[in-house]
Amino acid sequence: MISPAYADLGAKLRRAHLLSTVADLLSWDEQVNLPPASAEQRARQMALLAELQHAAASDARIGELLATLEATKTTLGADELIVVRQARRDYDRMARLPSEFVSEKATLSSQAYHAWAQARAQNDFPGYAPFIEKHLGLAKREAAYLGFGDSPYDCFIDQMDPGLTAATVGRLFDELKQGLVPLEKKILAAPRLSPGLLRAFPVEGQQAFLREVTERLGFDYQRGRIDVSLHPFCSGTGADTRMTTRFKEDEPLDSLFSAIHETGHGLYEQGLPLDEAGTALGMHAGMGIHESQSRLWENQVARGRAFWRYFEPRFRARFPQQTAAISSEVLYRAVNAVEPTPIRVDADEVTYNLHIILRFELEKKLFAGDLAVRDLPAAWRESSRELLGLEPATDREGVLQDVHWSGGAFGYFPSYCLGNMIAAQFWYAALAALPGLEDDFARGEFSRLLGWLRTRVHRQGRRYEPLALVREVTGEDLSPRYLLRYLQERYGSLYLASSAS
Amino acid sequence: MISPAYADLGAKLRRAHLLSTVADLLSWDEQVNLPPASAEQRARQMALLAELQHAAASDARIGELLATLEATKTTLGADELIVVRQARRDYDRMARLPSEFVSEKATLSSQAYHAWAQARAQNDFPGYAPFIEKHLGLAKREAAYLGFGDSPYDCFIDQMDPGLTAATVGRLFDELKQGLVPLEKKILAAPRLSPGLLRAFPVEGQQAFLREVTERLGFDYQRGRIDVSLHPFCSGTGADTRMTTRFKEDEPLDSLFSAIHETGHGLYEQGLPLDEAGTALGMHAGMGIHESQSRLWENQVARGRAFWRYFEPRFRARFPQQTAAISSEVLYRAVNAVEPTPIRVDADEVTYNLHIILRFELEKKLFAGDLAVRDLPAAWRESSRELLGLEPATDREGVLQDVHWSGGAFGYFPSYCLGNMIAAQFWYAALAALPGLEDDFARGEFSRLLGWLRTRVHRQGRRYEPLALVREVTGEDLSPRYLLRYLQERYGSLYLASSAS
Repeated sequence: MISPAYADLGAKLRRAHLLSTVADLLSWDEQVNLPPASAEQRARQMALLAELQHAAASDARIGELLATLEATKTTLGADELIVVRQARRDYDRMARLPSEFVSEKATLSSQAYHAWAQARAQNDFPGYAPFIEKHLGLAKREAAYLGFGDSPYDCFIDQMDPGLTAATVGRLFDELKQGLVPLEKKILAAPRLSPGLLRAFPVEGQQAFLREVTERLGFDYQRGRIDVSLHPFCSGTGADTRMTTRFKEDEPLDSLFSAIHETGHGLYEQGLPLDEAGTALGMHAGMGIHESQSRLWENQVARGRAFWRYFEPRFRARFPQQTAAISSEVLYRAVNAVEPTPIRVDADEVTYNLHIILRFELEKKLFAGDLAVRDLPAAWRESSRELLGLEPATDREGVLQDVHWSGGAFGYFPSYCLGNMIAAQFWYAALAALPGLEDDFARGEFSRLLGWLRTRVHRQGRRYEPLALVREVTGEDLSPRYLLRYLQERYGSLYLASSAS
Repeated sequence: MISPAYADLGAKLRRAHLLSTVADLLSWDEQVNLPPASAEQRARQMALLAELQHAAASDARIGELLATLEATKTTLGADELIVVRQARRDYDRMARLPSEFVSEKATLSSQAYHAWAQARAQNDFPGYAPFIEKHLGLAKREAAYLGFGDSPYDCFIDQMDPGLTAATVGRLFDELKQGLVPLEKKILAAPRLSPGLLRAFPVEGQQAFLREVTERLGFDYQRGRIDVSLHPFCSGTGADTRMTTRFKEDEPLDSLFSAIHETGHGLYEQGLPLDEAGTALGMHAGMGIHESQSRLWENQVARGRAFWRYFEPRFRARFPQQTAAISSEVLYRAVNAVEPTPIRVDADEVTYNLHIILRFELEKKLFAGDLAVRDLPAAWRESSRELLGLEPATDREGVLQDVHWSGGAFGYFPSYCLGNMIAAQFWYAALAALPGLEDDFARGEFSRLLGWLRTRVHRQGRRYEPLALVREVTGEDLSPRYLLRYLQERYGSLYLASSAS
């Protein structure tokens, strides 16, 4: 029987969660619909919602209920214990942050966002630097409030991926870098595709094709939609999942793969237990796991030959003229083009991870005090030369390219690369567990994979911390070697003579 | 100098108002974007927002600040007194409604909305009746809380249009009816247009044309947008004004006039002083005045010959084939077609008012206890025969056609007809004040009219109650005779041989 205290706790958690869904919608609308001169009101709405969310999540009644439940732990079931443990974690975090601090951070984020957009447009890092500086100050204060005064960067890594530390991430990234840099060098030395093969794909046709693909993968449009925004993203929850993409007539694969990536996020949200929204049982396990779901569908699935066996004729049927002169092999190579670029969001899946390692290393130095904000542009260029073999022509293509720091979202970048590692490790586990899986794909059948992910990952909610979930699903500790193996297999056969079949 | 108490009051009012803008956005999104299976979460979000709005607007601190300011009234300026007076009115209303009552009404409204939609689809009034019954019960409770126990219908009339009563509205409507019914009979006896002249206008062209028109009228798309929804509406404030329309290929005038109507609402919102949002100085004067703004642009302006002198060639240029066989006179008659229909939202501007009088009379009887909810369908049919000369074939086309009662929005309908009267009275005042006004329109120039409305109406906010504002603007008490004069002039010349020029 559910105790009254547990039921009351659930109601409080659902209320805080419901407020966060409203904030999500405001943010989605800001990026999809907001008229250009309406940003100021939206900033005030967002700051008010942040304040209300904080008040709801740090409600002293939650503290009382948690104390009651923790004192009678022996009467709780296993799932209830998990919910109470996570609620304690979230409550303590919220209760330790003063309300003024939360408002200050929300207000700064809104100002910094516009400062960033302007600085990027004008290639003016010094105009943006004071905002990063302020965010860094707030981040250190936040870490101190939350008991991470000695290791502030860990505070944010842990917020994104519970249980992880900068040291653990650093070890994983170093191991990855050792395998990745030589692989990248070999690929980049090999002959590559000339760009510009894909031209004049009408947006309407692109929209229809990506709708067909994402529905086939399992996205439920009864509870979600896809719109257009400057940068693709997925927000909302399983009750109302909002994805976006962007369209360029000459880059049909960009909108398609963006949409498939967001579909991976959306499938995860739609697979979390809806009845448990707001509790650990209905919560995603961390940003790395979230990213693993987008990457797995985008890369392991949709860049594979089996996927294209099914979808290539459909793609050609929608765009007969545009694809007439393109052979299957050339199309497949375009899907898997590797080309170094200074821009993370345009990067292929081989070099992408190096973009992340670059950001992780700079963030680590910023927090350790080994790098001043004003020296970021130079440090960025140096790392870029070292890791990617190129230097951004301008700060606009370098240190100013990403929005994250304007929101104070430090420690977020590593999740992208962790997600790639986790996706690859999940992928080999799925291949082992589901014989003939890729034959499914060639028939346009993706439900066995989705079902496996639903059971193993989605329905687990936040029962496990990310590293523990990886062990549960794959039987092994998280390791970069699966990502390296996957990249070697896919790109080796395409680009490296010695591995070509 | 602004007193600290006045400044604090302003902050509290802005906060409550900001919450209402969030609720508005959720409601807009529900009608424009919401995926079909996401309604339940949206209902919970709306109920939570209603609760938070109520808490913010009934915050005891507002009561204390008002008491302080009222005790030192002599130190306040004229505008400050207006703000305090309206804040007292709003605060008392909110503080008298128990929070449980507000939640109960929000929850019932959400359930009743879905019950209404289903009942309408299935032509099942008995399935919907219990929800009207419950809303009526809540409305009577609300009236009692607010001190209108003896005249509950007045409570809702007054909420929509401060200072008005059912008796005043009844007198105005009776006078209007006396002139309108004979005019309607004469028009309907005259030969009319055969429908179906306008065919196959592609939606893209319609969109481009209405964008051109609404921009020309003065709508600021930097602070607003237009989208598509089942029923056209305008929501938001001047900081972010969201209009909608709907498109049918064979009814290009429907989407156009819906958009112009909503533009009228939008221009009013965009003309309210933005800095004063949440106070009486930044608040619309009532729903009747709001509707006068939409009607004035839709009817007096956009159904006039001068408007079409400018826009007809532009309309033809966008749709050369579709308009080739249509003479200017036929097009103008299509713009001003009069045709009785059982459906209010499809009604022309002559018969529209009779639809409203019908609803007003039924609501009055419901509140007086002279009509039982179960007898509504029969009473509706009888009134329809009497006023419109036709009987709806089904309840779907009769008593089930409107959404309003599902939200407990009693007393809302009269504002539509009051708005028509006010629009006509404003119109003749504008013609007198601005010589050559219609020559402006023929040159595509609408800014003199907009400027006049901005100064006389929009920038007044809620300084005056609606009837007082009408006197301020026109120098006369509100009277239906301007509406009758306008309808006689416009439709007499088109339909009645004796008045034809």
